[in-house]
Amino acid sequence: MTQHISLITLGVAELARAKAFYRMGFGWEPVFETADVAFFQMNGFVFAIWDKTQLEQDMARPCAPAGSFALAHNVESAQAVDAVIDRLVAAGATLLRPADPPPHGGYRGYVADPDGHAWEIAWNPAWTVDAAGHVRFAL
Amino acid sequence: MTQHISLITLGVAELARAKAFYRMGFGWEPVFETADVAFFQMNGFVFAIWDKTQLEQDMARPCAPAGSFALAHNVESAQAVDAVIDRLVAAGATLLRPADPPPHGGYRGYVADPDGHAWEIAWNPAWTVDAAGHVRFAL
Repeated sequence: MTQHISLITLGVAELARAKAFYRMGFGWEPVFETADVAFFQMNGFVFAIWDKTQLEQDMARPCAPAGSFALAHNVESAQAVDAVIDRLVAAGATLLRPADPPPHGGYRGYVADPDGHAWEIAWNPAWTVDAAGHVRFAL
Repeated sequence: MTQHISLITLGVAELARAKAFYRMGFGWEPVFETADVAFFQMNGFVFAIWDKTQLEQDMARPCAPAGSFALAHNVESAQAVDAVIDRLVAAGATLLRPADPPPHGGYRGYVADPDGHAWEIAWNPAWTVDAAGHVRFAL
């Protein structure tokens, strides 16, 4: 099987609030939306925010309030980490961890989106992000 | 800001169990691993499984037992959906929803990995997956 993930779907309580957050916070625009779901074309996969009662029906399991996972958005400098975190908090995020340097180098902080999903905003000088936003692992 | 996600990190209780699951179930090999974390190079981003106590420390928040999100792996046919679900269950997944056709077409089912993270295995004839595993949204 190819080593790929097609879609990351976050369950959200209020789609309008979640859409406003991702638009205001990250500046992201959906490629397609309905009253219940919005799809974003990302770097090699699709990101979706979906009414959580529908995600629950679809995956046949209740959604927990906050998951044991984190998504990360890498930026080009330590200064940009602080600026993006400020922008996300202004857009409705909750600060989980103010940015500081992790043991392996770089600089990162965490916020939670309005539904509690954790986002790491990171500068990692070793990881390349190409013009299409594709990210390659490196030490 | 570019519309990209760098990293998806799942918190796991036992890294060895999680690594064995992703290796046996999906056939995926880490690009780098330590005693606490394994990184997989994916289609335009990086996927990680990380000791959950360390993820909790890093994001400064406890991990919930199961999240309000789902990851999806698309395959090339309805038959392949059933085959992959069988393989994942044999590798230690729990079946959440046996595969059936959703209202918008195609065919999909859900399993949970050994830590409870939801995976949708889907055939969607409209979504292209290129040779590099990059996925493009389409109706």
